Amino acid sequence: MLRSRVRMKEYSHPPLEEVTLPAVMQALSDPCRIAIVRTLLEGGELACNGVPLDISKATRSHHFAILRDAGLVATRVEGTRCMSSVRKEEFEERFPGLLELVLQHEK
Amino acid sequence: MLRSRVRMKEYSHPPLEEVTLPAVMQALSDPCRIAIVRTLLEGGELACNGVPLDISKATRSHHFAILRDAGLVATRVEGTRCMSSVRKEEFEERFPGLLELVLQHEK
Repeated sequence: MLRSRVRMKEYSHPPLEEVTLPAVMQALSDPCRIAIVRTLLEGGELACNGVPLDISKATRSHHFAILRDAGLVATRVEGTRCMSSVRKEEFEERFPGLLELVLQHEK
Repeated sequence: MLRSRVRMKEYSHPPLEEVTLPAVMQALSDPCRIAIVRTLLEGGELACNGVPLDISKATRSHHFAILRDAGLVATRVEGTRCMSSVRKEEFEERFPGLLELVLQHEK
């Protein structure tokens, strides 16, 4: 009975076909968010707080939320952690070449 | 002597190697600016006010300035008109695939 009161946080992810080019560009207009995407591309799935960034927890959550809303990142809950990864294949299909630009660009 | 007092407006254009990925993404995060770039890509060099947009002259100038600062667009003065075009080859070399995304994306 106790367990039924525990609500797991769930993250929502838009279908890629609903994501527009301006929205994706907006999501990638921040150096911090570009760094998150690059780190996830290089490292695969990582705990959200496992991406090394010198920013507050609130700012980090904000950046991840923007990346999720733009269809770039998927987040799932695993126990007490949230694990994130780039929606690589479906994003590449919708916006070909964009992830490669993020990977190639100098830090 | 009179002629020497007339100052032609000149536009400045950054070298592409100084343009960063976040800056380009920011420039392309607006539907209006995406429309400008697409129209110029399709039409070649056009007068700045020849791009059909339902916006004020000031807003139009603002959008063109952002596109110039991001290395996307070059503007030159011709008589009383300003003519703009996409810096296609050099932009493609620096950010391969990005102009194609702009062209391909639905209006």
